[in-house]
Amino acid sequence: MNKPSSQADRSPLYEQLAATDKRGYARFHVPGHKARATSGGGAEALAQEDAYLRDLLKIDMTEIPGLDDLHHPEGAIREAQGLAAECFGAEETFFLVGGSTAGNLAMILTVCGRGDLLLMQRNVHKSAIHACMLAGCRVVFLPPGWDADSGLAAGVAPEAVSAAIQRYPEAKAVFLTNPNYFGMGGDLAALARAAHEGGIPLLVDEAHGAHYGFHRGVPASAMQSGADAAVQSTHKMLTSLTMGAMLHVQGPRLDRDLLRQRLAMVQSSSPSYPIMASLDLSRRLMQTRGPALLEDALHRVTQFRERLAADTGGAYKLLGPAPTPAYETLDPFKLAVRAADGSALSGFQLLDELERHGCVAEMADAQHVLLACSLLTSEEDLARALQAFRSIAEARQLHDVDDRPSSPIPLLAETLAFSSAEPVTFDLQSSASREAATAVPLEQAVGRVSAEMVTPYPPGIPLLYPGESISQQTVQTLQQLAALGARFQGAADPRLHTMLTRKKQEKHPFA
Amino acid sequence: MNKPSSQADRSPLYEQLAATDKRGYARFHVPGHKARATSGGGAEALAQEDAYLRDLLKIDMTEIPGLDDLHHPEGAIREAQGLAAECFGAEETFFLVGGSTAGNLAMILTVCGRGDLLLMQRNVHKSAIHACMLAGCRVVFLPPGWDADSGLAAGVAPEAVSAAIQRYPEAKAVFLTNPNYFGMGGDLAALARAAHEGGIPLLVDEAHGAHYGFHRGVPASAMQSGADAAVQSTHKMLTSLTMGAMLHVQGPRLDRDLLRQRLAMVQSSSPSYPIMASLDLSRRLMQTRGPALLEDALHRVTQFRERLAADTGGAYKLLGPAPTPAYETLDPFKLAVRAADGSALSGFQLLDELERHGCVAEMADAQHVLLACSLLTSEEDLARALQAFRSIAEARQLHDVDDRPSSPIPLLAETLAFSSAEPVTFDLQSSASREAATAVPLEQAVGRVSAEMVTPYPPGIPLLYPGESISQQTVQTLQQLAALGARFQGAADPRLHTMLTRKKQEKHPFA
Repeated sequence: MNKPSSQADRSPLYEQLAATDKRGYARFHVPGHKARATSGGGAEALAQEDAYLRDLLKIDMTEIPGLDDLHHPEGAIREAQGLAAECFGAEETFFLVGGSTAGNLAMILTVCGRGDLLLMQRNVHKSAIHACMLAGCRVVFLPPGWDADSGLAAGVAPEAVSAAIQRYPEAKAVFLTNPNYFGMGGDLAALARAAHEGGIPLLVDEAHGAHYGFHRGVPASAMQSGADAAVQSTHKMLTSLTMGAMLHVQGPRLDRDLLRQRLAMVQSSSPSYPIMASLDLSRRLMQTRGPALLEDALHRVTQFRERLAADTGGAYKLLGPAPTPAYETLDPFKLAVRAADGSALSGFQLLDELERHGCVAEMADAQHVLLACSLLTSEEDLARALQAFRSIAEARQLHDVDDRPSSPIPLLAETLAFSSAEPVTFDLQSSASREAATAVPLEQAVGRVSAEMVTPYPPGIPLLYPGESISQQTVQTLQQLAALGARFQGAADPRLHTMLTRKKQEKHPFA
Repeated sequence: MNKPSSQADRSPLYEQLAATDKRGYARFHVPGHKARATSGGGAEALAQEDAYLRDLLKIDMTEIPGLDDLHHPEGAIREAQGLAAECFGAEETFFLVGGSTAGNLAMILTVCGRGDLLLMQRNVHKSAIHACMLAGCRVVFLPPGWDADSGLAAGVAPEAVSAAIQRYPEAKAVFLTNPNYFGMGGDLAALARAAHEGGIPLLVDEAHGAHYGFHRGVPASAMQSGADAAVQSTHKMLTSLTMGAMLHVQGPRLDRDLLRQRLAMVQSSSPSYPIMASLDLSRRLMQTRGPALLEDALHRVTQFRERLAADTGGAYKLLGPAPTPAYETLDPFKLAVRAADGSALSGFQLLDELERHGCVAEMADAQHVLLACSLLTSEEDLARALQAFRSIAEARQLHDVDDRPSSPIPLLAETLAFSSAEPVTFDLQSSASREAATAVPLEQAVGRVSAEMVTPYPPGIPLLYPGESISQQTVQTLQQLAALGARFQGAADPRLHTMLTRKKQEKHPFA
């Protein structure tokens, strides 16, 4: 991880693009913009706009001599990926131009073919579910732990992984998300040991943890913890262009030739060179100045945490610190803030108020607003946020009284543990069977399989995936959640009086 | 198509990004670069490099208020897509950030579930094959026509489509590539009629035809010809950033809700706003100035075609003009040039020579070098290319003698027509069956199914796809092609003494 390297300050791909641009070739290859701004010659406003793109167009090239080929790297891209592997502590690193989505699809399509079985954390990014649909695999969901204080779902316990492998020795891999959106993480080293003791690889969606492992003030990375593969959104917490991500792999448990083939399946055959070059630059930045930049940035966010409590008389609560019974680690750069007086100001309202004060947050839920900082978040921006929180507290007369909605956690924890026991078959139905889904009253859904994803908000964890069996207990829980005022986004009937279901298939077609 | 619109000169998404940047918000959302250049503070060389990205970073944002959501568009993206639909003659247009690859995957995953049957041109982009593997569908390949003059495979005849639908009435759709890489196109209107008479949609990979339909000097577009869906690489022949593409749909034959869901499956959940904005700008350019720009550009490339013949004493031959028995239309912006004396200079050598003269071509085959021009290709670049061709002709003493390698076409045409008769099952094998592939001597492969893609170069059309039955005739043709000196790129044994095969599966697992 971040070893010294004589090449660390180089950026092979970016340098190659810059050099190619400077040669001033006549471009008889795609892209069609030929490095010429498109709305040029227009009014001032247009010229103004074009300024955003004009310089980038010069390096928006394609697989011409010297620029290598992402899907068969032998030159600058291979060199850049090699430096990235060294920097991020992997045996091999693949640049992704389709975001962590592409990495999650490729990882799962590598370990699972039709009918294979996968052990997967229930609260995963939708790309992991999409991968299972494409793979046509069976999934046993591992229930997440719950943080009583915040009401948020955290990670999976190592014991849950070991138990699932014992019950399903045919499982091909374990797939986990770490850290989650709020920065909560589990004991990855223990989770990796649990998977490896079962003889299968641990795949980690580390989209939110690209900065992990570069400083003692942030948690260890998945690679450092012994995971076999990890996908990082370099654009989220580091500095690449959006859609720039990396897939890191190590060890003997993954078929890397198949992985290469799967990456070629799910990614563009005309990958963006600017995005790839920005990955090269991000690696260079972390390898040469990462620890120092993190040191300074950690100081800034730590100060913010202290000031927020001190300057507002306890009007706001911050998620953390770790460890708690629910999570081992917490990303210091994720600031999950809630009004202590939850009934006075929801997370959604807080997000709107902050925007009115010139601060755009990452997201909100019923209680929290989430500020995503990075190693490039400035002193000025943090001061601005602090001032905004102060003004909002005054205007809303927020006080230090801990008041929040009743939590559905006990209900959910029990039901999820129960409903996670049996494999769920994911698939792309043939056009014939696609039409077979029928809406039935909720109470009549017992014994059938769900034909839609049912996700109560809060807490936003899918209670039923398409293809999942509907038990009596699940229906009762759904009714109680509805009574508690939960919303069911994305369901055909958001009030869930009826549900889309199918007849239970006795035998799995690929089993 | 390109109707006048009061909104034509607007670019809703790009304007929204520029406005948001100018508001100067504190950014507590991803991406982590926070619009700050990453290698700043470094040496001159770094600052120089960063200049390519610095301005773009300002609009590399995410789904914050005002910037809409590609996967659930209700604002600026919806508006921009609406203007694109109007401009490109579609009922509905979807912006793609994963290139035409994403569009081909989504189209096929929308019409085909497990075991469904698709009628597909044999010479398609690999993304179409990948889509079939993910869908787990069965494919009946439609043999392409052949151009005797160039030795290139062209498109599919409408009669072949009608015959295939008659034989396979259960077919879900017809998938075609039009135009091909060299710009050759078929009678799309007749092909659409053939599909619609069979009651199924026509899906077109129009990656190379984003400029079609904007001027009488270029062929009609797939939308104008009645196709139900068409994917265009806006970055290839128009002016968006690389990976920017569009999926146009019309008519009642596609399930658009399912299409939306499939697009969300195969594309990043963090789509690049600069790429989407560049699609918005490309549409604006074509809607406001497209015909005029094409008029000028057509004049330039037409002049080049005339001068190339005149100024080099017939040392070079240009593909075309259309129509020929093999293709109806030819893209005037694709210049496929070969040395008349093919034994003196191959297409590959010609590509290298051109690069030495400062002209980078799109690609080459054994005979041709392909120059991809666009509406932004300049007078200067074309003059430079003309001078380069002149110098090369003099240096190599090229003359007007038509000499070229013997063509494998008759052999291939017959074998493909024959081998295309039966459905091929595509799938992602389970990890168990993946290991079942065995290498056998070519002559012993008859009666088994191929476990690899076998593509003789020339002409580069896959003769066997994984899962395809291996007939006596196919083996004979492969042996004769090998004797003619064909190479088999990507095959486990490039000399094809042995082939990776599997035992024939009597029954299709999804049938």
